[in-house]
Amino acid sequence: MAINILGYVAAFLTTVAFVPQVYKALKTKNTADISLYMYICFIAGLTAWMIYGIFEKVPAIILANSVTLSLAAVILTYKIIHVIKGEKP
Amino acid sequence: MAINILGYVAAFLTTVAFVPQVYKALKTKNTADISLYMYICFIAGLTAWMIYGIFEKVPAIILANSVTLSLAAVILTYKIIHVIKGEKP
Repeated sequence: MAINILGYVAAFLTTVAFVPQVYKALKTKNTADISLYMYICFIAGLTAWMIYGIFEKVPAIILANSVTLSLAAVILTYKIIHVIKGEKP
Repeated sequence: MAINILGYVAAFLTTVAFVPQVYKALKTKNTADISLYMYICFIAGLTAWMIYGIFEKVPAIILANSVTLSLAAVILTYKIIHVIKGEKP
């Protein structure tokens, strides 16, 4: 039981971790030091986790990854806009 | 079987995603746009995942999270050094 709670705590922390990064990117309007390739690779991985969660019917995986995916997508979108404007990837 | 492979692909992608971010931070020596709080929260979550993996005896969780933890720790260490020098968190 306690170990299940630890799993939820772990999923919660690795998910909400992206909130301050989204906030910082939106507030400063700077993404120069953020890696484009990290977020492309990370989002591909999260998408794979989502499909895995759907096939294996694990609601916790689906929920945690959909939230992280949404947050990472905001950062990636912002980064892509800046790269189009000439920022290094 | 195919779904297990998808799980490994997912774990691989979300893990190696941090390699280009580490590379970028080390190359440019800039972390201004990276959120300190993201990496503190993320590392706390990865540590919780590691403990979960050890207790539940899931080698894949232990392995994937230990690699991600090492990569994220490099970024966090670099960011902390810059914050001490006056960079915004």
